Amino acid sequence: MNDELHDVIMVGAGPSSLAAAIYTTREDIETILYEKGVIGGMAAITDKVDNYPGFPDGVEGMKLADLLQAQAVRFGAKIDFGDVSAIREEGKLKVVVVDGKDVRARAVLIATGSDYNKIGVPGEAEYYGRGVHYCATCDGAFYRDKRLVVIGGGNSAVQEAIFLTRFTSHIDLLVRSTIKASEILQRELQKYVDQGKLTIHYGVTTQEIVATDGKVTSVLAEKDSKSISYETDGVFVFVGLSPNTEFLRGSAIELDEHGLIKTDTRHETSVKGVFASGDVRSGATLQIASAVGEGAAAALSIREYLDGLNHHI
Amino acid sequence: MNDELHDVIMVGAGPSSLAAAIYTTREDIETILYEKGVIGGMAAITDKVDNYPGFPDGVEGMKLADLLQAQAVRFGAKIDFGDVSAIREEGKLKVVVVDGKDVRARAVLIATGSDYNKIGVPGEAEYYGRGVHYCATCDGAFYRDKRLVVIGGGNSAVQEAIFLTRFTSHIDLLVRSTIKASEILQRELQKYVDQGKLTIHYGVTTQEIVATDGKVTSVLAEKDSKSISYETDGVFVFVGLSPNTEFLRGSAIELDEHGLIKTDTRHETSVKGVFASGDVRSGATLQIASAVGEGAAAALSIREYLDGLNHHI
Repeated sequence: MNDELHDVIMVGAGPSSLAAAIYTTREDIETILYEKGVIGGMAAITDKVDNYPGFPDGVEGMKLADLLQAQAVRFGAKIDFGDVSAIREEGKLKVVVVDGKDVRARAVLIATGSDYNKIGVPGEAEYYGRGVHYCATCDGAFYRDKRLVVIGGGNSAVQEAIFLTRFTSHIDLLVRSTIKASEILQRELQKYVDQGKLTIHYGVTTQEIVATDGKVTSVLAEKDSKSISYETDGVFVFVGLSPNTEFLRGSAIELDEHGLIKTDTRHETSVKGVFASGDVRSGATLQIASAVGEGAAAALSIREYLDGLNHHI
Repeated sequence: MNDELHDVIMVGAGPSSLAAAIYTTREDIETILYEKGVIGGMAAITDKVDNYPGFPDGVEGMKLADLLQAQAVRFGAKIDFGDVSAIREEGKLKVVVVDGKDVRARAVLIATGSDYNKIGVPGEAEYYGRGVHYCATCDGAFYRDKRLVVIGGGNSAVQEAIFLTRFTSHIDLLVRSTIKASEILQRELQKYVDQGKLTIHYGVTTQEIVATDGKVTSVLAEKDSKSISYETDGVFVFVGLSPNTEFLRGSAIELDEHGLIKTDTRHETSVKGVFASGDVRSGATLQIASAVGEGAAAALSIREYLDGLNHHI
C-alpha cells in the first residue's frame, strides 16, 4: 500500500513532458515525471538540432535536453527514474505502476515517444546522429550536395528518399527484397532514377556502417552472397517506427493501428484524465518543436481537467 | 500585372510563421512572409517570456523574436513589410493582395494572430507587459503573493481571476456593470470571495493605470461619479480577443463564431492549399510554444501539399 498521491504523473521525460511540466509546475500543479531511459528522450541523443525555433545556429541535442530539464526543475518538477508497466483507473484517480509499485495521481500525461526501428548492424549505434539518421526532416538538410545511402523498401523509405533528393547529389537506395510502396510513389521514385539522382539496389542486405576517422564513409552490404561497398557521406534508415505503448496493451486507452495513442483536439485520450502528447500521439510530426507545443497545450487541458475535478469533488 | 510567384506566402511574421519558415526554407521551399506590424508579433512586445521551453531563466520577448527571425533568415526566408487585405484562389494558385498589389503563391499560411482587446485608458499601453497583462497563463506566475486588479466581467475574466487566485494574496475584480459568466463559474468565484481572496467591485469604470517610478502601483476608477483608487502590484485586463481575420471576411476560408480560422488536424483551412497556425487558429492556446509547434507541423503539411501539386501538375 502506497499513499503517495500526485496531482500529475508524466510518463517519460522527453521534450514534450518537460514542456508540459514547465507549464503545470509554474502554476503550482504538483508534477512528477518517470523516465526509464535518458532525460530529454530522443532529443538528448541527437547530435545537433538545427530546427528547434529559438536557436538560430542550432543546438546540441544534449544541451537542449539540459535546458528543458533545468526549466522544468526551476518551477518545481520532480524527475525520477522508473519503469512504468501499466496505468489503470481507480474511481477518479489513476494508478500508475512504477517499478512494480502503485503510485496514484489525479491526472496522467503519457509522453513516452516512439523509437525508430534499427537494422542492428555494427556502426549503426556508434554513429547515430553523426552519419546515421532516421529522420529526413530533421537531418536531411545536413547533406546538401552530398552522397547518401538510404536503407528500406516500404512506403516511408520511398517517400523519404524522394524528399532527400532535394538536398543530395546522389542516393543509393538499398532494398532487401522488393519495394513495397504505393504505385504513385513508385512512379514518382522512377523519375529520380531516370534523372540519375537515385539508384535502386534490390536484394541487398546491409552488414556494416563503416567509418574512417570517426566519419561515416561507406556501407558494407551483401548481394547474391557477394560483398559490395557503397561509398557515402551518410546513411538514412527507414525500417519503421515503434511507439512506446507496449505498457498500454490491455488498458482502456485506445491506440491506432500503428500502436500510437489516439487523442482528441485537447490531447485527452479515450480515458478521461489521461492525456498524451509528442511522438507517441497518433498524428505526431516527430519534431521537437511540435512535441514541445503539444506538451504546453496538454498542460492547459490538464489544468482545466483538474479544475473541473475540484468543482465536483 | 505581377508575375511574381512564390512557393509559399506567409501572412504575419510572428512566432508561428517564423517557425514554419524555418522548416520550409530549410527544405528549399521558397518562402516570403508579409508583416504589417512588428516582426515577432505579440512575443516581440512582451517584456519577459518565462515559459518558452529552452530558456530556463526566461527570455525577453524581443530577444526571442530576434532569435526566431535570425533562424528563419539563416535558412533563406524573406520578410517584407506589407498589409494583406485579401486572399483568393486562381486555379491551383492563391492570390494574396499585399498593399493593394496581387502576389501569387502555390500555398499560403495565415498566422496573423489575435489581439487582446484594450480598455483604452492612460497607462495601459505604456506598461504593457510590465504591470499590465492580458494573459494569465503567461504572466500570472510573476504575481506570487502580490495584489492584483483584474478588469472585466465576462466568462473569461471570471475564469482567469479564479486561476490567478492560486498566485495572488488578493484580487480586486473591477466589473463595469454586472458579471456575465455561467452560473457554475459564478458559484466558483463566490468561494474565493468567501475566503477573502477576492473582492468584486460592481459598477466600476477604469480611468487610468497609475505608476510610480515606472512600476504600476494603483488603478484609478470611477463608481457612482466618485473617484476610487485601488492599490495593486499589477493589472490583468480580460475584455475579449480580436482575431486578425478581418481581411478574410467574404473569402471562402471558414471562420468559427469568434472569427478564428477553422482548420483540420493538418492545419489546413476549408480552402485547399491555405493553412493556418498559431493564435489565429480556432482552438489555439495563445501560447508561444504551441504557436511554434503548430507552425512546424503546418510546414510539414505545406510540404506534403506542394509535393502533391508537383505530382499532379
